[in-house]
Amino acid sequence: MGTTQLEATQDVQEPKYWHLKTVLNDALDSEFSVGEILPNERDLAARFGVARATLRQALEQLELEGRLQRRRGVGTTVAPPRMGVAVGPVDNAWPGIGNDTWRTVGCAEAVAPAAVARLFDSGAGVPVHTIRRERVMNGQPVATELLYVPAESVPGLPGLLSPASHAPAVLRELQRLDLEGEDRAVELGSARAEDAKQLDRLPGAPVLVVTTRYFAAGQVAAVAISTYRADTCRLTFGDTGTVEVTPHEEQERRQAS
Amino acid sequence: MGTTQLEATQDVQEPKYWHLKTVLNDALDSEFSVGEILPNERDLAARFGVARATLRQALEQLELEGRLQRRRGVGTTVAPPRMGVAVGPVDNAWPGIGNDTWRTVGCAEAVAPAAVARLFDSGAGVPVHTIRRERVMNGQPVATELLYVPAESVPGLPGLLSPASHAPAVLRELQRLDLEGEDRAVELGSARAEDAKQLDRLPGAPVLVVTTRYFAAGQVAAVAISTYRADTCRLTFGDTGTVEVTPHEEQERRQAS
Repeated sequence: MGTTQLEATQDVQEPKYWHLKTVLNDALDSEFSVGEILPNERDLAARFGVARATLRQALEQLELEGRLQRRRGVGTTVAPPRMGVAVGPVDNAWPGIGNDTWRTVGCAEAVAPAAVARLFDSGAGVPVHTIRRERVMNGQPVATELLYVPAESVPGLPGLLSPASHAPAVLRELQRLDLEGEDRAVELGSARAEDAKQLDRLPGAPVLVVTTRYFAAGQVAAVAISTYRADTCRLTFGDTGTVEVTPHEEQERRQAS
Repeated sequence: MGTTQLEATQDVQEPKYWHLKTVLNDALDSEFSVGEILPNERDLAARFGVARATLRQALEQLELEGRLQRRRGVGTTVAPPRMGVAVGPVDNAWPGIGNDTWRTVGCAEAVAPAAVARLFDSGAGVPVHTIRRERVMNGQPVATELLYVPAESVPGLPGLLSPASHAPAVLRELQRLDLEGEDRAVELGSARAEDAKQLDRLPGAPVLVVTTRYFAAGQVAAVAISTYRADTCRLTFGDTGTVEVTPHEEQERRQAS
């Protein structure tokens, strides 16, 4: 990485960290490889002749843009290209059906949290089955999910279930219903402690939160709240295939931009 | 806002800023109204007995979660609930068709930037019409867009066009094509200077970047790169209506969570 002092070349019209970001971005392309650990902040700041606060701002930008990753116990590394993760299925399908890539990690029955209950037509106070799932791609955890199924959506569920058979039984009952449709919302969030741990991120890391409502018999039969790593994922929605960009193309794109 | 010194009540297991975030969140619900400007960082830090760095971390979290907004020249304010912004249409449609809520703000013809050219089957070096658009909801700018249309997608376009008639003519020609489908990807980004200005945000603010490919005659006929404010928007996709949550419900949800 060069030793140019930024002060000498900086355009006075743009914030210092913004220019630094551009310089760092070029350096990442030309001098670093994916997965490589960046020098520590003190060294980087000294090398570019900037204050650590300025450096940190630039690093944060590059993290938002998916160029850098902060990894627990490792430091800041050069990020691989984001993975295209299909979120909107071509055909509506219940969770657990077909090529569902989620894995169940737990299940419990409890009263729905007020925030979730409000997404159901039946309102607050109803008992819901809560299935915690996770999605792993290329060996990396990319998302966690809480799937909420009101007990009244699955009236045929046996009363006595072992912990191991609870989630499969709920999913099976759900899949018996006639799925009328689903809709989704995507928004920016910050990882809660439990999700962060599951995703191997620090609490508060930026995440993309996808809220899916599943409709049956004219009602919301289930709700999934999925938390995707924003650093490694781009969510794809589509009816003509996904907007997957191959790692090679992505790398070129980055070098060109 | 209370004057409790955080040190006294803090759970040693969680980071200090995380606990502060929870306390601040409750204070926002009980003592502040939407749009209200927060006291400055020095005062807030003093009141909660935390370092300014800790305070800033907590404020950043709340901004990511959509609870706070940083506004240029104003300061940090309590954010209104995020707006549901429909992104995935029920039926595929060309830009500018039907209830398209975008407004054209400019148009130019140039060689496609390499990053964009790569999204087209025709590859690099092709001339494209670039239409800059913006989307305004409830009087607020919520998104900017660059819509790229390769000249070869619209061969019937007249050669001589005034600046005012350029964009309408391109859209009209595009709409003559048989739209075979579209797909989308959503990812986290940081606002580039020009987009930030248009969105009334600071450069580098977190944004949701939506890349849409429009297909005709077996090829990508147009690409739109849309930049949504992540602080004020939740993007909705759906075939059974949108996951709109009314402001009242949203407020309740927040108070309950």
